[in-house]
Amino acid sequence: MNTILEIGKKAKEASYKLATISTGVKNDALAQMAKALEDRKSEIIQANEKDRKEARKKGLKEALIERLMLDDARIAGMVKGLRELCDLPDPVGNGSMIKRPNGLTLLKQRVPLGVIGIIYESRPNVTSDAAGLCIKTGNSVILRGGSEAINSNIAIVEALAIGLEKANLPSTCVQLVEDTSRERVQELLTMREYVDVLIPRGGAGLIKNVVKNAQIPVIETGEGNCHIFIDENADLSMAKDILINAKTSRPSVCNAAEKLLVHEKIASVFLPEALKELRSWGVEIRACEKTRNIFPEALPAGKEDWSTEYLDMIIGVKVVESIDEAINHINRFGTSHSEAIITQDYKRANLFLARVDAACVYVNASTRFTDGGEFGMGAEIGISTQKLHARGPMGLEELTTVKYLILGNGQIR
Amino acid sequence: MNTILEIGKKAKEASYKLATISTGVKNDALAQMAKALEDRKSEIIQANEKDRKEARKKGLKEALIERLMLDDARIAGMVKGLRELCDLPDPVGNGSMIKRPNGLTLLKQRVPLGVIGIIYESRPNVTSDAAGLCIKTGNSVILRGGSEAINSNIAIVEALAIGLEKANLPSTCVQLVEDTSRERVQELLTMREYVDVLIPRGGAGLIKNVVKNAQIPVIETGEGNCHIFIDENADLSMAKDILINAKTSRPSVCNAAEKLLVHEKIASVFLPEALKELRSWGVEIRACEKTRNIFPEALPAGKEDWSTEYLDMIIGVKVVESIDEAINHINRFGTSHSEAIITQDYKRANLFLARVDAACVYVNASTRFTDGGEFGMGAEIGISTQKLHARGPMGLEELTTVKYLILGNGQIR
Repeated sequence: MNTILEIGKKAKEASYKLATISTGVKNDALAQMAKALEDRKSEIIQANEKDRKEARKKGLKEALIERLMLDDARIAGMVKGLRELCDLPDPVGNGSMIKRPNGLTLLKQRVPLGVIGIIYESRPNVTSDAAGLCIKTGNSVILRGGSEAINSNIAIVEALAIGLEKANLPSTCVQLVEDTSRERVQELLTMREYVDVLIPRGGAGLIKNVVKNAQIPVIETGEGNCHIFIDENADLSMAKDILINAKTSRPSVCNAAEKLLVHEKIASVFLPEALKELRSWGVEIRACEKTRNIFPEALPAGKEDWSTEYLDMIIGVKVVESIDEAINHINRFGTSHSEAIITQDYKRANLFLARVDAACVYVNASTRFTDGGEFGMGAEIGISTQKLHARGPMGLEELTTVKYLILGNGQIR
Repeated sequence: MNTILEIGKKAKEASYKLATISTGVKNDALAQMAKALEDRKSEIIQANEKDRKEARKKGLKEALIERLMLDDARIAGMVKGLRELCDLPDPVGNGSMIKRPNGLTLLKQRVPLGVIGIIYESRPNVTSDAAGLCIKTGNSVILRGGSEAINSNIAIVEALAIGLEKANLPSTCVQLVEDTSRERVQELLTMREYVDVLIPRGGAGLIKNVVKNAQIPVIETGEGNCHIFIDENADLSMAKDILINAKTSRPSVCNAAEKLLVHEKIASVFLPEALKELRSWGVEIRACEKTRNIFPEALPAGKEDWSTEYLDMIIGVKVVESIDEAINHINRFGTSHSEAIITQDYKRANLFLARVDAACVYVNASTRFTDGGEFGMGAEIGISTQKLHARGPMGLEELTTVKYLILGNGQIR
């Protein structure tokens, strides 16, 4: 097994190679990686069965084991993902230029980031998705998946290595950290010499550990305590449809609504019917006192509810006195992911857009649209909830940086 | 004195105010800040004399005391800096838009970062420069300058506060951490709730501490171990001019050349004359064995020389066997700041541009051009040597982020 330091050195070497190859070679590698995944499907499924058996032994919840599971359809999804990347435009090499009065030509060119470290939890399809995105953008990648999926991840990376080599690229373009101990993660988080960027993908605990201990630039992704604010001038029928969609269409994802804020002027009209319908969908209601006066079937919300991302069929409900209270509540308890106002008032829509501090702010639409595909990016590595480098859905361009190339003919200063 | 937490809270509040005001109000604030600096010039100079007296008592070097010094001319420079910012275009509010097939309109709009923490060393003019750049871009700022300049910084921030209030903005838009203890810095580095970005400006030690301990996104600036590589096909007269300029025109700045790499095929022709001229400028030569065989007056370079940023009249010199050795040496020992090749060969120029991993890569020009003003940006907060968010000189746009505003009419997914 390679040490983290060896993995880092090899990744850096591979990144220099990847930075100078053409889009055609990268697309060929993606196609070969897709084919190799298909060819080694049975080995991957076998390895996955081993992981699931271990997981059952350890007593993991069935929902987690389901996330871990790979079958023909899921592998076909991974293959399709790699093939679709071939068709997307390559951002590397494009840029802009200016000529300075002293005759210097400045080219600002898009280049790969270099070596990307991705730290994620149990879903093994991330292994192939993330590898594909990195190869398409000319980055080498160090993958550190969860221990529950280690056999699956080894099998997937072995297949990807075959594909890379068929395309005459070093297999070290995509490396897996096979030792999933905490110590190895800490080493990865501080290996400044060889890793350019870290992207944690997973729950709040994982992200917190990376942010706290990393000495390498991090892009935080995916925590979403998203709010829907129903303003006093909302179209209440539209408001209900958006609320139901944002909460129930896929409650386990980061762009699902977790909280409902309702203006007090329409609370007694809107809440009874809307909350009844949410309950009929199986949603648990945790609400403030004012809400419970209107809708007594709701459970009382605790203090910690306002900052919790449930990722489940639960919603926190609060009646607010004003749009200002709604905005302040969102800026205080939100995670800067996706926030929506439902209103027919032009001025108040603009106020909400301007003052809510989040990656994506919606007027009269479901928060569920925060997604690379829905934004027309084609592919997505995650949703950035921080402000540096990228904000909101991150596509291929967000996996690159820029470099100034300055062409002179003897200029001195 | 405010605690760091109080400073943070007030900065966050002020940032919400700043995010929604017009360019006109921000320019008015800059003009009022400039005027207040002029009006309180004598108080600032008095405070600065106190700092310098303390510094002499503590036995600080004269060069450091000179950096600390404020006189009429330097304050006039600070005033001019603020006034020039008024004329620069405001990046906030601009952006792009797309319409999605489902009718959603996506606006990708440039917005302020929020609260910026700037941690810097003794030069007190940074206090007003950084404050001005932040106000122009709608960010509130927490300034943590060095303890040697504390009285000067307090006097400057007092003046800026008067200016802000005259423009009807809260003085908390610009706050100084008056307690310069290490403990307060550590608090600042971890105050995720209230600080959006940290920018360290100063020596390698300061930057390392921030990177190691920060739990907030950091933009690293300014370390520059810059190389000039003289290729075998170089115009040797141009090579000498660029070398002398890059090393001697201002040796204490980050874009000055620190190392000279020379292709062995032209070493015996180029080095004797070039090194003789460098010495005549007062530059100390620390060289590899091969160089010393050609130019015996050079001192032997130690191992640590190759990674050292001297910021002084010293240069490290190494003969290399090939352009590959030069590129590998630069990628290993450089700080990803500014690197130059001097060559007349098209193919080798392109190879160097593609493979050297740095913010600014030059062909046939001095590394001294890496500068916001020289790049046509008008103003600069620093030179980013990292790859996330910004690379190379950072102007106004680099002090902003983006936000997606999504306008719908009832869309659900």
